[in-house]
Amino acid sequence: MAEILKNDWFYEYFTGNAKFGIKIKDHFIDTRSEFQKIDFYDSYEYGRFFTLDGFIMLTERDEFIYHEMLVHLPMAVNADAKNVLIIGGGDGGAVRELVRYPGVRHIDMVEIDRMVVDLCREYLPQTASKLGDPRVSLHFCDGIAFVREAQEKYDLILIDSTDPVGVGEGLFSQAFYEDCARLLAPGGVMVNQHESPYYEGDAVEMERAHKKLSSVFPVCRVYQFHMPTYASGHWLFGFASQDRDPLVFDAAAWNALGLHTDYYNTELHRGCFALPNYVLRRLGKAREK
Amino acid sequence: MAEILKNDWFYEYFTGNAKFGIKIKDHFIDTRSEFQKIDFYDSYEYGRFFTLDGFIMLTERDEFIYHEMLVHLPMAVNADAKNVLIIGGGDGGAVRELVRYPGVRHIDMVEIDRMVVDLCREYLPQTASKLGDPRVSLHFCDGIAFVREAQEKYDLILIDSTDPVGVGEGLFSQAFYEDCARLLAPGGVMVNQHESPYYEGDAVEMERAHKKLSSVFPVCRVYQFHMPTYASGHWLFGFASQDRDPLVFDAAAWNALGLHTDYYNTELHRGCFALPNYVLRRLGKAREK
Repeated sequence: MAEILKNDWFYEYFTGNAKFGIKIKDHFIDTRSEFQKIDFYDSYEYGRFFTLDGFIMLTERDEFIYHEMLVHLPMAVNADAKNVLIIGGGDGGAVRELVRYPGVRHIDMVEIDRMVVDLCREYLPQTASKLGDPRVSLHFCDGIAFVREAQEKYDLILIDSTDPVGVGEGLFSQAFYEDCARLLAPGGVMVNQHESPYYEGDAVEMERAHKKLSSVFPVCRVYQFHMPTYASGHWLFGFASQDRDPLVFDAAAWNALGLHTDYYNTELHRGCFALPNYVLRRLGKAREK
Repeated sequence: MAEILKNDWFYEYFTGNAKFGIKIKDHFIDTRSEFQKIDFYDSYEYGRFFTLDGFIMLTERDEFIYHEMLVHLPMAVNADAKNVLIIGGGDGGAVRELVRYPGVRHIDMVEIDRMVVDLCREYLPQTASKLGDPRVSLHFCDGIAFVREAQEKYDLILIDSTDPVGVGEGLFSQAFYEDCARLLAPGGVMVNQHESPYYEGDAVEMERAHKKLSSVFPVCRVYQFHMPTYASGHWLFGFASQDRDPLVFDAAAWNALGLHTDYYNTELHRGCFALPNYVLRRLGKAREK
């Protein structure tokens, strides 16, 4: 939920009783696609940002954190990844980071909402500018149907989805995760948007996702990062695989690639899997349910 | 800065252009001490919380994160700590965690503002209830003068201060850090509130503190934690010492103490020193200045 108060503050409600406000310069897109409400804003603190159904998807100022942690961590583990599938990711940020790897040969990006991609291409070139890379195939269709019908194998699958409400809901289902598992090549890795441990509503979704993932993937880990414009600032990705331990990777090889990053590094790669006790306990209980 | 809008939302401004809102049940203390504005609230999402000069100091819901990271990490490194000095910490949360260690024999707590302690004792027993522990000596005086004049040696010094404005400003000065260094016993450790790397105003203070600490202490490290009600949710403590590496500690011994914690654990202890690149770069530049 969002509201514009006095026409100059955007609010995202983290819960009914906590909210985050951004002073806006301009609310320049206020529209609705076939799937969701879409709004684009310009702001003083975060540059441009956009929301889907009132929830902040990204801001120019802090999207680097999310996209670096989404892409570079699994790429450091599965360094030979050639064929990549992205579900969601309409802003193009995941693609932007992926195409920096010469070894990546092909990226299928499956985004249900073409309007998100079109608007990001026009108004958020910071994230969307690499969507035209010749290695990228855009598929404007339902990710659930795509993975159900796909036969190709992928070395890396990124679930860059919204929260599990509305259009994103099916991307948190057990059937969807099972299809993703079937599409993973040997040694393949899946990373998914895994919600947040702090506010109760988010934490319940974190538990649900972890329970389902744990029943599908033998390796199922969670890692954290500091994301200032997401609820509580404490956000998680899931790392799932048949056989890859996320902490077994060649840090020197990744560093030899010479990729400049502003958040990710190979020390932080190891550190980000060390979760607080209250998060570990909720994840543990989720697995037992 | 804070404002109550329509008498039901408390706002803390992270910057002039970003703010955090908490729906309040009650604003039951609205006063001013000799040193600062003091307000106590009750809220739906965070329980009771209090602010100094409009900035959230703690909420009942997430103070465990701050206090566990402030106390247990250095206690795991300097497990034999007997004599402890706390500068600030009027809410009692640091004392509450410290008195769980039987080996801690004496705690000098130096809080400039007696009214904060009195109000926390009355309205925040969750943090303040151990201030009466017989090992605790409360000193209601200026921490700067206290460390300048003190002759005793401490195994652990905790700088549990407000931000470096107003009453907290001198607790970020080079002279203050030099006095603390002089008071540290061999093998002693100092941990200080080290601001946040994200918003520019906070990050500048982080740099200043790190530059000063680095010029005083041979060992000067920074560790991070997720603090939902502080600006950006990304907060830091500094770890300073003449000779102790914070990553050289006996995890098994700490775990054998059997202390229940909701945030801190010995894996996270290692992980929390792995900082994002943008933070490392700012700290590195600060040291070179």
